[in-house]
Amino acid sequence: MGRVTERRRVVRLRDGAVSERADTLVAEEPLEIRLDGRPLAITMRTPGDDFALAAGFLVSEGVLARPEELATIVYCAGATEQADGTTRNSYNVVDVRLAPGVPVPDITLERNVYTTSSCGLCGKASLDAVRTTARWPLGDGALRVEPGVLAGLPDRLRAAQRVFDRTGGLHAAGLFSPTGELLDLCEDVGRHNAVDKLVGRALTQGRLPLSGTVLLVSGRASFELAQKAVMAGVPVLAAVSAPSSLAVDLAAETGLTLVGFLRGTSMNVYAGGHRVALERTEPVPHGDSG
Amino acid sequence: MGRVTERRRVVRLRDGAVSERADTLVAEEPLEIRLDGRPLAITMRTPGDDFALAAGFLVSEGVLARPEELATIVYCAGATEQADGTTRNSYNVVDVRLAPGVPVPDITLERNVYTTSSCGLCGKASLDAVRTTARWPLGDGALRVEPGVLAGLPDRLRAAQRVFDRTGGLHAAGLFSPTGELLDLCEDVGRHNAVDKLVGRALTQGRLPLSGTVLLVSGRASFELAQKAVMAGVPVLAAVSAPSSLAVDLAAETGLTLVGFLRGTSMNVYAGGHRVALERTEPVPHGDSG
Repeated sequence: MGRVTERRRVVRLRDGAVSERADTLVAEEPLEIRLDGRPLAITMRTPGDDFALAAGFLVSEGVLARPEELATIVYCAGATEQADGTTRNSYNVVDVRLAPGVPVPDITLERNVYTTSSCGLCGKASLDAVRTTARWPLGDGALRVEPGVLAGLPDRLRAAQRVFDRTGGLHAAGLFSPTGELLDLCEDVGRHNAVDKLVGRALTQGRLPLSGTVLLVSGRASFELAQKAVMAGVPVLAAVSAPSSLAVDLAAETGLTLVGFLRGTSMNVYAGGHRVALERTEPVPHGDSG
Repeated sequence: MGRVTERRRVVRLRDGAVSERADTLVAEEPLEIRLDGRPLAITMRTPGDDFALAAGFLVSEGVLARPEELATIVYCAGATEQADGTTRNSYNVVDVRLAPGVPVPDITLERNVYTTSSCGLCGKASLDAVRTTARWPLGDGALRVEPGVLAGLPDRLRAAQRVFDRTGGLHAAGLFSPTGELLDLCEDVGRHNAVDKLVGRALTQGRLPLSGTVLLVSGRASFELAQKAVMAGVPVLAAVSAPSSLAVDLAAETGLTLVGFLRGTSMNVYAGGHRVALERTEPVPHGDSG
């Protein structure tokens, strides 16, 4: 369990020369998340921080918001059947038990197609659902982040990534203070998992809602990532790459500040610009949007 | 329906200058896939080629393999309830009807946590499931692809991407002949969707299994993408970025050729090297693995 990287033999071609050696790859294994014993979701994840991942997933889904709502998280023993009929603990199944009195969501496939990663919610209904289930408003109206601080975040995230350097195969999510201090960092083969791990740690440490923080993701800003930010109370989401239309719409509806294409000293602010300390100037001629 | 891009206002910061203008974003909307009327999965996708996406998803899941097994795919009218209680067609729900006699998978949440994107299968059981449900062996043992051909594929894919240039936010999947001819290309906000769309088109056009083809994906090679390649009968999967450990394991077990870090004239061959026409030479000193 918990191996973040694995070694495999690889044949390499470089400048016409062929060689064979061991290569370090990011580990990817399935994690089944059970809620009170019932299967809820399977996600392909990089092992490690599995309890945080499960807890953060349930925050994103609106099931958990406060640490006292979570009773226990355990690895399910004997969850994997072997060829000889015996079972062993694969450390790939976790069971989350809610505290007494915490409502267990009515999970049936007909009603809720709970999904691993991309959404779990649906269209207009999902935008409504986010507004309904978020336990806190996205406050921090007075929060102002300097563009220079935002511009420095990708380098800080990259410098703090340990596994990426060895594999080139990991997404990262970093939580920063408004002055650019790195508060926490998670890496995973799935960017949604990296965010869930961050949020799950914050839940168990009593740090939700994550007011006064900036969440930076290494890739694109999809709807699901914007949704996870909102559910965790993060007021500012920044992405190195492009956002999707639905991410922008969700940000605009919930008051989330959404920054994309954060590269060098350039960035695009798609929503919630009041939290970015921009001095308006005259437009300058530019052709590209990226 | 079917809008691949959408326009949103954006505040841009470039070299200290702030301007506001319209920006082109990749469209992202949920698609609910129903099978014989029952909800099966929701995926966040870029609208367009929705029927191909649904068909390809069902190929990946082992439900479909031949065009005659598919009866109809339709958009569900009235699937979205409006604020006033009426319903309208959101073009975000499709229903797939199987031909008479085609087994409908037993889909219950307890047994199969069908998921949007990342997996849908589980661990060792899923590796077994791929071997079980794949309708054809990965033949093409005699197929040999020249490294020079592989090296040229990323530029060809990039040149053929129409939407990426405008949004910077799309994954692409390209299907190539062994000599590097582009056979088909799909773009989507989700890379798994891009592959499903390619595979779904191939199904309905009677081109499965995709023997004698090379599938290039614009990002990383995850387990799910390797699985989709195997299920569609694609013998060679190439990725611009890193593969995961489980993708390499699946490739090795199924005989799939897996090429990663395909950049310039460099590449790593992780499995199925017999299909890559490499001349073995002495190793040359190199430090990095990417």
